[in-house]
Amino acid sequence: MKLALIQMQVKNTPEENLIKAKTLLAEAAAEKIDIAVFPEMFACPYDNSCFPRFAMDKDDPFLLEMGNLALEHGIYIVAGSVPEKFKDKIYNTSFVFDPKGHRIEKHRKMHLFDINIEGGQRFMESDVLTPGEDFTTFDTPWGKLGLMICYDIRFPELARLLALQGAKGIIVPAAFNMTTGPAHWELSFRARALDNQLYMAGIAPARDNSASYVAWGHTISTDPWGRVLVQLEEKEEIAFVEWDLEYLEKVRRELPLLQHRRTDLYRLTDITNR
Amino acid sequence: MKLALIQMQVKNTPEENLIKAKTLLAEAAAEKIDIAVFPEMFACPYDNSCFPRFAMDKDDPFLLEMGNLALEHGIYIVAGSVPEKFKDKIYNTSFVFDPKGHRIEKHRKMHLFDINIEGGQRFMESDVLTPGEDFTTFDTPWGKLGLMICYDIRFPELARLLALQGAKGIIVPAAFNMTTGPAHWELSFRARALDNQLYMAGIAPARDNSASYVAWGHTISTDPWGRVLVQLEEKEEIAFVEWDLEYLEKVRRELPLLQHRRTDLYRLTDITNR
Repeated sequence: MKLALIQMQVKNTPEENLIKAKTLLAEAAAEKIDIAVFPEMFACPYDNSCFPRFAMDKDDPFLLEMGNLALEHGIYIVAGSVPEKFKDKIYNTSFVFDPKGHRIEKHRKMHLFDINIEGGQRFMESDVLTPGEDFTTFDTPWGKLGLMICYDIRFPELARLLALQGAKGIIVPAAFNMTTGPAHWELSFRARALDNQLYMAGIAPARDNSASYVAWGHTISTDPWGRVLVQLEEKEEIAFVEWDLEYLEKVRRELPLLQHRRTDLYRLTDITNR
Repeated sequence: MKLALIQMQVKNTPEENLIKAKTLLAEAAAEKIDIAVFPEMFACPYDNSCFPRFAMDKDDPFLLEMGNLALEHGIYIVAGSVPEKFKDKIYNTSFVFDPKGHRIEKHRKMHLFDINIEGGQRFMESDVLTPGEDFTTFDTPWGKLGLMICYDIRFPELARLLALQGAKGIIVPAAFNMTTGPAHWELSFRARALDNQLYMAGIAPARDNSASYVAWGHTISTDPWGRVLVQLEEKEEIAFVEWDLEYLEKVRRELPLLQHRRTDLYRLTDITNR
Protein backbone atom coordinates (compact mmCIF):
# COMPACT_ATOMS: atom_id res chain seq x y z
CA MET A 1 0.00 0.00 0.00
CA LYS A 2 1.65 3.21 -1.16
CA LEU A 3 0.51 6.55 0.21
CA ALA A 4 1.15 10.14 -0.81
CA LEU A 5 0.94 12.53 2.14
CA ILE A 6 0.43 15.96 0.63
CA GLN A 7 1.76 18.75 2.86
CA MET A 8 -0.04 21.49 0.98
CA GLN A 9 0.37 25.23 1.55
CA VAL A 10 -3.21 26.32 2.26
CA LYS A 11 -4.39 29.53 0.57
CA ASN A 12 -7.26 31.87 1.50
CA THR A 13 -10.20 30.42 -0.48
CA PRO A 14 -11.54 27.00 -1.53
CA GLU A 15 -11.18 28.02 -5.20
CA GLU A 16 -7.45 28.71 -4.87
CA ASN A 17 -6.98 25.57 -2.78
CA LEU A 18 -8.76 23.36 -5.29
CA ILE A 19 -6.38 24.48 -8.04
CA LYS A 20 -3.38 23.82 -5.83
CA ALA A 21 -4.73 20.45 -4.68
CA LYS A 22 -5.21 19.32 -8.30
CA THR A 23 -1.65 20.23 -9.23
CA LEU A 24 -0.14 18.46 -6.22
CA LEU A 25 -2.36 15.43 -6.75
CA ALA A 26 -1.22 15.07 -10.37
CA GLU A 27 2.38 15.15 -9.14
CA ALA A 28 1.62 12.53 -6.48
CA ALA A 29 -0.34 10.25 -8.82
CA ALA A 30 2.62 10.05 -11.19
CA GLU A 31 4.36 7.97 -8.49
CA LYS A 32 1.89 5.03 -8.72
CA ILE A 33 0.23 5.58 -5.38
CA ASP A 34 -2.85 3.87 -3.94
CA ILE A 35 -4.02 6.58 -1.53
CA ALA A 36 -3.52 10.33 -1.39
CA VAL A 37 -4.19 12.33 1.76
CA PHE A 38 -4.58 16.08 2.21
CA PRO A 39 -4.12 18.08 5.45
CA GLU A 40 -6.66 19.19 8.02
CA MET A 41 -8.57 22.28 6.83
CA PHE A 42 -7.05 22.36 3.35
CA ALA A 43 -9.99 24.21 1.76
CA CYS A 44 -9.58 27.35 3.88
CA PRO A 45 -7.30 28.70 6.60
CA TYR A 46 -7.45 27.11 10.04
CA ASP A 47 -9.15 30.05 11.74
CA ASN A 48 -12.47 30.23 13.57
CA SER A 49 -13.56 33.17 11.40
CA CYS A 50 -13.11 31.09 8.22
CA PHE A 51 -15.11 28.04 9.28
CA PRO A 52 -18.62 29.57 9.03
CA ARG A 53 -17.64 31.63 5.99
CA PHE A 54 -16.39 28.68 3.94
CA ALA A 55 -18.51 25.87 5.43
CA MET A 56 -19.72 23.55 2.66
CA ASP A 57 -22.26 20.76 2.44
CA LYS A 58 -21.28 17.28 1.26
CA ASP A 59 -22.29 18.07 -2.34
CA ASP A 60 -20.27 21.24 -2.59
CA PRO A 61 -18.34 21.55 -5.89
CA PHE A 62 -15.07 21.39 -3.93
CA LEU A 63 -15.96 17.92 -2.64
CA LEU A 64 -17.56 16.71 -5.89
CA GLU A 65 -14.29 17.58 -7.58
CA MET A 66 -12.38 15.46 -5.04
CA GLY A 67 -14.52 12.50 -6.16
CA ASN A 68 -13.77 13.28 -9.79
CA LEU A 69 -10.05 13.39 -9.07
CA ALA A 70 -10.18 10.02 -7.26
CA LEU A 71 -11.83 8.51 -10.35
CA GLU A 72 -9.49 10.26 -12.77
CA HIS A 73 -6.37 8.97 -11.00
CA GLY A 74 -7.91 5.63 -9.92
CA ILE A 75 -6.89 6.09 -6.27
CA TYR A 76 -8.40 6.57 -2.83
CA ILE A 77 -8.45 10.16 -1.65
CA VAL A 78 -8.75 11.14 1.99
CA ALA A 79 -9.79 14.73 1.53
CA GLY A 80 -7.98 16.16 4.56
CA SER A 81 -10.73 18.05 6.28
CA VAL A 82 -13.09 20.89 5.46
CA PRO A 83 -15.62 22.90 7.47
CA GLU A 84 -18.79 20.89 6.82
CA LYS A 85 -22.18 22.54 7.09
CA PHE A 86 -24.91 20.11 8.17
CA LYS A 87 -28.28 21.42 9.29
CA ASP A 88 -27.43 24.44 11.45
CA LYS A 89 -24.06 23.10 12.62
CA ILE A 90 -20.46 23.18 11.40
CA TYR A 91 -18.16 20.16 11.72
CA ASN A 92 -14.47 19.61 11.01
CA THR A 93 -14.95 16.73 8.57
CA SER A 94 -12.78 14.42 6.48
CA PHE A 95 -14.44 12.79 3.45
CA VAL A 96 -13.05 9.62 1.82
CA PHE A 97 -13.43 8.81 -1.89
CA ASP A 98 -12.73 5.45 -3.53
CA PRO A 99 -11.07 4.90 -6.95
CA LYS A 100 -14.50 4.93 -8.61
CA GLY A 101 -15.03 8.45 -7.29
CA HIS A 102 -17.66 7.45 -4.73
CA ARG A 103 -17.75 9.10 -1.33
CA ILE A 104 -17.48 6.04 0.93
CA GLU A 105 -16.95 7.44 4.42
CA LYS A 106 -16.57 10.57 6.48
CA HIS A 107 -15.09 11.40 9.88
CA ARG A 108 -16.22 14.36 11.92
CA LYS A 109 -13.55 15.45 14.42
CA MET A 110 -14.65 13.88 17.69
CA HIS A 111 -12.51 15.87 20.14
CA LEU A 112 -12.52 19.63 19.68
CA PHE A 113 -9.29 21.51 20.25
CA ASP A 114 -9.57 23.95 23.16
CA ILE A 115 -6.18 25.01 24.48
CA ASN A 116 -4.88 27.99 26.42
CA ILE A 117 -1.15 27.77 27.16
CA GLU A 118 0.43 30.57 29.21
CA GLY A 119 2.78 32.36 26.80
CA GLY A 120 1.91 29.86 24.05
CA GLN A 121 -0.97 28.73 21.89
CA ARG A 122 -4.62 29.66 22.50
CA PHE A 123 -7.42 28.26 20.28
CA MET A 124 -11.06 27.40 21.00
CA GLU A 125 -12.60 25.25 18.26
CA SER A 126 -15.71 24.72 20.34
CA ASP A 127 -16.58 28.42 19.92
CA VAL A 128 -17.61 27.61 16.34
CA LEU A 129 -17.54 23.85 15.67
CA THR A 130 -19.66 20.89 16.77
CA PRO A 131 -17.89 17.62 17.58
CA GLY A 132 -18.59 14.35 15.70
CA GLU A 133 -20.12 11.31 17.32
CA ASP A 134 -18.74 8.40 15.27
CA PHE A 135 -15.77 6.05 15.10
CA THR A 136 -14.61 5.88 11.50
CA THR A 137 -12.99 3.05 9.56
CA PHE A 138 -13.14 2.12 5.87
CA ASP A 139 -12.11 -0.92 3.89
CA THR A 140 -9.47 -0.99 1.18
CA PRO A 141 -8.07 -3.95 -0.80
CA TRP A 142 -5.00 -3.83 1.51
CA GLY A 143 -6.88 -3.80 4.82
CA LYS A 144 -9.09 -1.67 7.00
CA LEU A 145 -8.00 1.88 7.78
CA GLY A 146 -9.07 4.16 10.61
CA LEU A 147 -9.56 7.90 10.36
CA MET A 148 -9.21 10.60 12.98
CA ILE A 149 -8.56 14.37 12.86
CA CYS A 150 -5.72 16.14 14.69
CA TYR A 151 -6.66 16.53 18.38
CA ASP A 152 -8.40 13.12 18.21
CA ILE A 153 -4.90 11.57 18.36
CA ARG A 154 -4.48 12.86 21.94
CA PHE A 155 -6.90 10.24 23.24
CA PRO A 156 -5.46 6.72 23.39
CA GLU A 157 -8.97 5.29 23.73
CA LEU A 158 -9.87 6.27 20.17
CA ALA A 159 -6.80 4.78 18.44
CA ARG A 160 -7.16 1.63 20.54
CA LEU A 161 -10.81 1.19 19.58
CA LEU A 162 -9.98 1.70 15.89
CA ALA A 163 -7.28 -0.99 16.19
CA LEU A 164 -9.69 -3.34 17.93
CA GLN A 165 -12.21 -2.66 15.15
CA GLY A 166 -9.58 -3.97 12.73
CA ALA A 167 -7.66 -0.92 11.52
CA LYS A 168 -4.16 -1.73 10.23
CA GLY A 169 -3.35 1.93 9.71
CA ILE A 170 -4.79 5.22 10.97
CA ILE A 171 -4.83 8.35 8.84
CA VAL A 172 -4.82 11.67 10.68
CA PRO A 173 -5.19 14.96 8.80
CA ALA A 174 -3.83 17.32 11.43
CA ALA A 175 -2.36 20.72 12.19
CA PHE A 176 -0.34 20.88 15.37
CA ASN A 177 1.09 24.32 16.17
CA MET A 178 4.42 25.86 17.16
CA THR A 179 3.83 25.01 20.86
CA THR A 180 2.44 21.47 20.64
CA GLY A 181 4.23 20.48 17.42
CA PRO A 182 7.83 20.34 18.66
CA ALA A 183 6.68 18.96 22.03
CA HIS A 184 4.14 16.29 21.07
CA TRP A 185 3.69 15.62 17.33
CA GLU A 186 6.29 12.90 16.69
CA LEU A 187 5.80 11.42 20.16
CA SER A 188 2.04 11.01 19.64
CA PHE A 189 2.39 9.35 16.23
CA ARG A 190 5.11 6.99 17.48
CA ALA A 191 3.20 6.07 20.63
CA ARG A 192 -0.13 5.29 18.96
CA ALA A 193 1.65 3.17 16.34
CA LEU A 194 3.67 1.27 18.94
CA ASP A 195 0.85 0.66 21.41
CA ASN A 196 -1.58 -0.52 18.75
CA GLN A 197 0.99 -2.15 16.44
CA LEU A 198 -0.22 -0.44 13.30
CA TYR A 199 0.80 2.26 10.83
CA MET A 200 0.01 5.93 11.43
CA ALA A 201 0.10 8.91 9.08
CA GLY A 202 -0.23 12.56 10.10
CA ILE A 203 -0.80 14.99 7.24
CA ALA A 204 -0.22 18.65 8.07
CA PRO A 205 -0.47 21.85 6.07
CA ALA A 206 2.80 23.56 5.13
CA ARG A 207 3.74 26.38 7.51
CA ASP A 208 2.52 29.92 6.82
CA ASN A 209 4.14 32.34 9.25
CA SER A 210 1.64 35.06 8.32
CA ALA A 211 -1.38 32.92 9.32
CA SER A 212 -3.30 33.48 12.55
CA TYR A 213 -2.61 29.82 13.44
CA VAL A 214 0.94 28.81 12.49
CA ALA A 215 1.13 25.09 11.69
CA TRP A 216 4.10 22.94 12.69
CA GLY A 217 4.05 20.96 9.40
CA HIS A 218 6.22 17.84 9.78
CA THR A 219 3.88 15.45 7.95
CA ILE A 220 4.85 12.03 9.30
CA SER A 221 4.31 8.29 9.09
CA THR A 222 5.21 5.77 11.81
CA ASP A 223 5.28 1.97 11.85
CA PRO A 224 4.03 -0.83 14.15
CA TRP A 225 7.41 -0.93 15.96
CA GLY A 226 7.10 2.78 16.84
CA ARG A 227 9.64 4.00 14.27
CA VAL A 228 9.39 7.11 12.11
CA LEU A 229 9.23 6.01 8.44
CA VAL A 230 9.20 9.49 6.97
CA GLN A 231 8.91 13.04 8.27
CA LEU A 232 8.90 16.30 6.31
CA GLU A 233 10.00 19.73 7.49
CA GLU A 234 7.71 22.78 7.25
CA LYS A 235 7.69 23.54 3.49
CA GLU A 236 5.13 22.41 0.89
CA GLU A 237 6.17 18.91 -0.13
CA ILE A 238 4.76 15.44 -0.73
CA ALA A 239 5.89 12.49 1.42
CA PHE A 240 5.62 9.02 -0.09
CA VAL A 241 5.47 5.99 2.16
CA GLU A 242 4.81 2.25 1.78
CA TRP A 243 2.89 0.35 4.46
CA ASP A 244 3.82 -3.35 4.67
CA LEU A 245 0.99 -5.35 6.21
CA GLU A 246 3.14 -8.49 6.44
CA TYR A 247 5.56 -6.63 8.67
CA LEU A 248 2.64 -5.53 10.84
CA GLU A 249 1.56 -9.16 11.28
CA LYS A 250 5.15 -10.14 12.17
CA VAL A 251 5.31 -7.52 14.93
CA ARG A 252 1.93 -8.61 16.28
CA ARG A 253 3.06 -12.24 16.30
CA GLU A 254 6.42 -11.64 18.02
CA LEU A 255 5.19 -9.21 20.71
CA PRO A 256 1.44 -9.92 20.95
CA LEU A 257 0.40 -6.74 22.80
CA LEU A 258 -3.19 -6.74 21.57
CA GLN A 259 -3.66 -10.32 22.76
CA HIS A 260 -1.98 -9.62 26.12
CA ARG A 261 -4.56 -7.02 27.14
CA ARG A 262 -6.23 -7.99 30.45
CA THR A 263 -9.80 -7.81 29.21
CA ASP A 264 -10.82 -9.64 32.38
CA LEU A 265 -9.67 -6.65 34.49
CA TYR A 266 -10.42 -3.60 32.35
CA ARG A 267 -12.79 -2.99 29.49
CA LEU A 268 -12.71 -0.35 26.79
CA THR A 269 -15.93 -0.07 24.81
CA ASP A 270 -17.40 1.91 21.98
CA ILE A 271 -20.73 2.99 23.47
CA THR A 272 -22.14 4.63 20.35
CA ASN A 273 -24.13 1.41 19.73
CA ARG A 274 -23.81 1.40 15.99
CA MET B 1 8.30 15.34 46.27
CA LYS B 2 11.87 14.15 45.82
CA LEU B 3 12.58 10.64 44.59
CA ALA B 4 15.72 8.51 44.44
CA LEU B 5 15.60 6.01 41.58
CA ILE B 6 18.18 3.38 42.45
CA GLN B 7 19.62 1.67 39.38
CA MET B 8 21.18 -1.18 41.33
CA GLN B 9 23.46 -3.86 39.92
CA VAL B 10 21.64 -7.05 40.88
CA LYS B 11 23.74 -9.91 42.30
CA ASN B 12 23.00 -13.64 42.47
CA THR B 13 21.28 -14.00 45.86
CA PRO B 14 18.86 -12.03 48.08
CA GLU B 15 21.55 -11.90 50.81
CA GLU B 16 24.06 -10.16 48.57
CA ASN B 17 21.36 -7.88 47.16
CA LEU B 18 20.15 -6.83 50.59
CA ILE B 19 23.65 -5.67 51.54
CA LYS B 20 23.95 -3.72 48.31
CA ALA B 21 20.46 -2.22 48.66
CA LYS B 22 21.27 -0.98 52.17
CA THR B 23 24.46 0.72 51.02
CA LEU B 24 22.78 2.44 48.07
CA LEU B 25 19.82 3.47 50.20
CA ALA B 26 22.07 5.13 52.77
CA GLU B 27 23.70 7.07 49.94
CA ALA B 28 20.29 8.08 48.54
CA ALA B 29 18.83 9.02 51.93
CA ALA B 30 21.69 11.48 52.52
CA GLU B 31 20.09 13.64 49.78
CA LYS B 32 16.89 14.35 51.78
CA ILE B 33 14.58 12.26 49.65
CA ASP B 34 10.93 11.37 50.27
CA ILE B 35 10.72 8.14 48.29
CA ALA B 36 13.31 5.58 47.20
CA VAL B 37 12.57 3.04 44.47
CA PHE B 38 14.45 -0.13 43.56
CA PRO B 39 14.36 -1.98 40.20
CA GLU B 40 12.24 -4.89 39.07
CA MET B 41 13.59 -8.20 40.43
CA PHE B 42 16.28 -6.67 42.62
CA ALA B 43 16.45 -9.59 45.07
CA CYS B 44 17.60 -12.12 42.46
CA PRO B 45 18.49 -12.24 38.76
CA TYR B 46 15.69 -11.78 36.24
CA ASP B 47 15.63 -15.39 35.07
CA ASN B 48 12.83 -17.94 35.12
CA SER B 49 15.07 -20.43 36.94
CA CYS B 50 15.63 -17.96 39.80
CA PHE B 51 12.00 -17.09 40.48
CA PRO B 52 10.94 -20.40 42.14
CA ARG B 53 14.33 -20.78 43.83
CA PHE B 54 14.26 -17.37 45.52
CA ALA B 55 10.51 -16.86 45.84
CA MET B 56 9.69 -15.32 49.25
CA ASP B 57 6.53 -14.75 51.22
CA LYS B 58 5.53 -11.27 52.42
CA ASP B 59 7.20 -11.81 55.80
CA ASP B 60 10.51 -12.92 54.39
CA PRO B 61 13.50 -11.31 56.18
CA PHE B 62 14.42 -9.52 52.95
CA LEU B 63 11.08 -7.69 52.96
CA LEU B 64 10.98 -7.13 56.73
CA GLU B 65 14.35 -5.45 56.38
CA MET B 66 12.93 -3.13 53.70
CA GLY B 67 10.34 -2.00 56.26
CA ASN B 68 13.09 -1.44 58.84
CA LEU B 69 15.05 0.66 56.36
CA ALA B 70 11.98 2.80 55.53
CA LEU B 71 11.55 3.49 59.25
CA GLU B 72 15.26 4.09 59.82
CA HIS B 73 15.48 6.68 57.02
CA GLY B 74 11.94 8.05 57.50
CA ILE B 75 11.03 7.63 53.83
CA TYR B 76 8.70 5.68 51.56
CA ILE B 77 10.33 2.68 49.89
CA VAL B 78 8.95 1.05 46.77
CA ALA B 79 10.80 -2.23 46.99
CA GLY B 80 11.28 -2.77 43.25
CA SER B 81 9.94 -6.24 42.79
CA VAL B 82 10.68 -9.71 44.10
CA PRO B 83 9.40 -13.19 43.27
CA GLU B 84 6.55 -13.52 45.77
CA LYS B 85 5.37 -16.93 46.90
CA PHE B 86 1.67 -16.98 47.80
CA LYS B 87 -0.13 -20.30 48.28
CA ASP B 88 1.20 -22.47 45.43
CA LYS B 89 1.85 -19.57 43.03
CA ILE B 90 4.67 -17.16 42.27
CA TYR B 91 4.03 -13.51 41.43
CA ASN B 92 6.29 -10.65 40.32
CA THR B 93 5.43 -8.30 43.19
CA SER B 94 6.33 -4.80 44.32
CA PHE B 95 5.81 -4.01 48.03
CA VAL B 96 5.48 -0.45 49.33
CA PHE B 97 6.60 0.66 52.82
CA ASP B 98 5.74 3.96 54.51
CA PRO B 99 8.08 6.06 56.69
CA LYS B 100 6.86 4.22 59.78
CA GLY B 101 8.07 0.96 58.26
CA HIS B 102 4.58 -0.39 57.58
CA ARG B 103 3.87 -2.37 54.43
CA ILE B 104 1.01 -0.31 52.97
CA GLU B 105 0.46 -1.71 49.48
CA LYS B 106 1.64 -4.24 46.92
CA HIS B 107 1.36 -4.60 43.18
CA ARG B 108 1.52 -7.93 41.42
CA LYS B 109 2.56 -7.57 37.77
CA MET B 110 -0.69 -7.69 35.85
CA HIS B 111 0.64 -8.33 32.33
CA LEU B 112 3.20 -11.10 32.02
CA PHE B 113 6.03 -10.63 29.56
CA ASP B 114 5.97 -13.20 26.77
CA ILE B 115 8.03 -12.17 23.77
CA ASN B 116 9.71 -13.98 20.90
CA ILE B 117 11.46 -11.65 18.47
CA GLU B 118 13.16 -13.19 15.43
CA GLY B 119 16.89 -12.60 15.97
CA GLY B 120 16.15 -10.73 19.20
CA GLN B 121 14.77 -11.25 22.67
CA ARG B 122 12.85 -14.35 23.80
CA PHE B 123 11.36 -14.60 27.31
CA MET B 124 8.27 -16.34 28.67
CA GLU B 125 7.35 -15.15 32.17
CA SER B 126 4.10 -17.07 32.04
CA ASP B 127 6.07 -20.36 32.12
CA VAL B 128 6.71 -19.69 35.82
CA LEU B 129 4.76 -16.68 37.07
CA THR B 130 1.09 -15.97 37.75
CA PRO B 131 -0.28 -12.53 36.84
CA GLY B 132 -1.80 -10.14 39.39
CA GLU B 133 -5.43 -9.08 39.36
CA ASP B 134 -5.37 -5.62 40.97
CA PHE B 135 -4.97 -1.96 40.11
CA THR B 136 -2.58 -0.42 42.61
CA THR B 137 -2.41 3.11 44.00
CA PHE B 138 -1.25 4.42 47.36
CA ASP B 139 -1.54 7.75 49.14
CA THR B 140 1.36 9.96 50.15
CA PRO B 141 1.35 13.45 51.70
CA TRP B 142 2.13 14.83 48.20
CA GLY B 143 -0.63 13.01 46.31
CA LYS B 144 -1.72 9.60 45.16
CA LEU B 145 0.78 7.44 43.27
CA GLY B 146 0.14 4.50 40.96
CA LEU B 147 2.29 1.40 40.70
CA MET B 148 2.90 -0.93 37.78
CA ILE B 149 5.69 -3.34 36.84
CA CYS B 150 7.62 -3.29 33.55
CA TYR B 151 5.46 -4.86 30.80
CA ASP B 152 2.37 -3.32 32.46
CA ILE B 153 3.45 -0.02 30.89
CA ARG B 154 2.74 -1.41 27.42
CA PHE B 155 -1.00 -1.17 28.01
CA PRO B 156 -2.40 2.37 27.84
CA GLU B 157 -5.59 1.21 29.56
CA LEU B 158 -3.76 0.59 32.84
CA ALA B 159 -1.97 3.95 33.07
CA ARG B 160 -5.19 5.72 32.07
CA LEU B 161 -7.19 3.96 34.78
CA LEU B 162 -4.56 4.80 37.41
CA ALA B 163 -4.73 8.45 36.31
CA LEU B 164 -8.53 8.41 36.49
CA GLN B 165 -8.25 6.86 39.96
CA GLY B 166 -6.27 9.95 40.96
CA ALA B 167 -2.60 9.05 40.46
CA LYS B 168 -0.35 12.10 39.99
CA GLY B 169 2.67 9.92 39.33
CA ILE B 170 3.22 6.30 38.34
CA ILE B 171 6.19 4.30 39.56
CA VAL B 172 7.36 1.44 37.35
CA PRO B 173 10.11 -0.93 38.50
CA ALA B 174 11.11 -2.38 35.13
CA ALA B 175 13.75 -4.19 33.12
CA PHE B 176 13.49 -3.65 29.39
CA ASN B 177 16.11 -5.52 27.34
CA MET B 178 18.60 -4.81 24.56
CA THR B 179 15.88 -5.24 21.89
CA THR B 180 12.94 -3.38 23.43
CA GLY B 181 15.01 -0.89 25.46
CA PRO B 182 16.48 1.21 22.66
CA ALA B 183 13.26 0.89 20.65
CA HIS B 184 10.54 1.53 23.22
CA TRP B 185 11.70 2.48 26.74
CA GLU B 186 11.89 6.27 26.54
CA LEU B 187 8.95 6.42 24.11
CA SER B 188 6.68 4.51 26.49
CA PHE B 189 7.55 6.63 29.52
CA ARG B 190 7.11 9.88 27.57
CA ALA B 191 3.81 8.77 26.02
CA ARG B 192 2.13 7.61 29.23
CA ALA B 193 3.20 10.83 30.99
CA LEU B 194 1.96 13.04 28.15
CA ASP B 195 -1.37 11.27 27.57
CA ASN B 196 -2.26 11.16 31.25
CA GLN B 197 -0.57 14.44 32.25
CA LEU B 198 1.30 12.99 35.18
CA TYR B 199 4.83 12.04 36.25
CA MET B 200 6.35 8.66 35.44
CA ALA B 201 9.42 6.89 36.81
CA GLY B 202 10.99 3.73 35.40
CA ILE B 203 13.56 2.08 37.65
CA ALA B 204 15.79 -0.49 35.95
CA PRO B 205 18.63 -2.69 37.16
CA ALA B 206 22.13 -1.78 36.00
CA ARG B 207 23.28 -3.78 32.99
CA ASP B 208 25.07 -7.10 33.50
CA ASN B 209 26.36 -8.38 30.17
CA SER B 210 27.00 -11.82 31.66
CA ALA B 211 23.35 -12.28 32.71
CA SER B 212 20.91 -14.53 30.81
CA TYR B 213 18.64 -11.47 30.42
CA VAL B 214 20.63 -8.32 29.68
CA ALA B 215 18.82 -5.24 30.97
CA TRP B 216 18.81 -1.93 29.08
CA GLY B 217 19.17 0.16 32.26
CA HIS B 218 18.36 3.81 31.49
CA THR B 219 16.35 4.52 34.64
CA ILE B 220 14.14 7.44 33.67
CA SER B 221 11.59 9.99 34.83
CA THR B 222 9.22 11.94 32.58
CA ASP B 223 6.87 14.86 33.24
CA PRO B 224 3.23 15.78 32.44
CA TRP B 225 4.31 17.60 29.25
CA GLY B 226 6.01 14.42 27.96
CA ARG B 227 9.58 15.57 28.63
CA VAL B 228 12.44 13.46 29.99
CA LEU B 229 13.47 14.91 33.39
CA VAL B 230 16.35 12.53 33.99
CA GLN B 231 17.73 9.40 32.34
CA LEU B 232 20.71 7.31 33.38
CA GLU B 233 22.93 5.17 31.19
CA GLU B 234 23.58 1.49 31.94
CA LYS B 235 25.88 1.60 34.99
CA GLU B 236 24.93 1.36 38.67
CA GLU B 237 23.89 4.86 39.70
CA ILE B 238 21.16 6.74 41.56
CA ALA B 239 18.95 9.25 39.75
CA PHE B 240 17.37 12.01 41.84
CA VAL B 241 14.27 13.79 40.59
CA GLU B 242 11.73 16.28 41.96
CA TRP B 243 8.06 16.01 41.00
CA ASP B 244 6.22 19.35 41.07
CA LEU B 245 2.50 18.82 41.54
CA GLU B 246 1.74 22.49 40.89
CA TYR B 247 3.26 22.16 37.44
CA LEU B 248 1.09 19.11 36.84
CA GLU B 249 -2.03 21.10 37.69
CA LYS B 250 -0.91 23.92 35.36
CA VAL B 251 -0.55 21.48 32.44
CA ARG B 252 -3.95 19.95 33.15
CA ARG B 253 -5.52 23.43 33.29
CA GLU B 254 -3.98 24.72 30.06
CA LEU B 255 -4.54 21.59 27.92
CA PRO B 256 -7.37 19.75 29.69
CA LEU B 257 -6.94 16.34 28.04
CA LEU B 258 -8.50 14.35 30.85
CA GLN B 259 -11.61 16.54 30.76
CA HIS B 260 -11.82 16.41 26.94
CA ARG B 261 -12.27 12.63 26.85
CA ARG B 262 -15.51 11.71 25.07
CA THR B 263 -16.96 9.57 27.83
CA ASP B 264 -20.29 9.72 26.00
CA LEU B 265 -18.76 7.78 23.07
CA TYR B 266 -16.27 5.40 24.69
CA ARG B 267 -15.91 4.02 28.15
CA LEU B 268 -12.88 2.57 29.91
CA THR B 269 -13.69 0.74 33.12
CA ASP B 270 -11.94 -1.14 35.87
CA ILE B 271 -14.04 -4.32 36.04
CA THR B 272 -12.33 -5.83 39.06
CA ASN B 273 -15.31 -4.52 41.14
CA ARG B 274 -13.39 -3.52 44.19
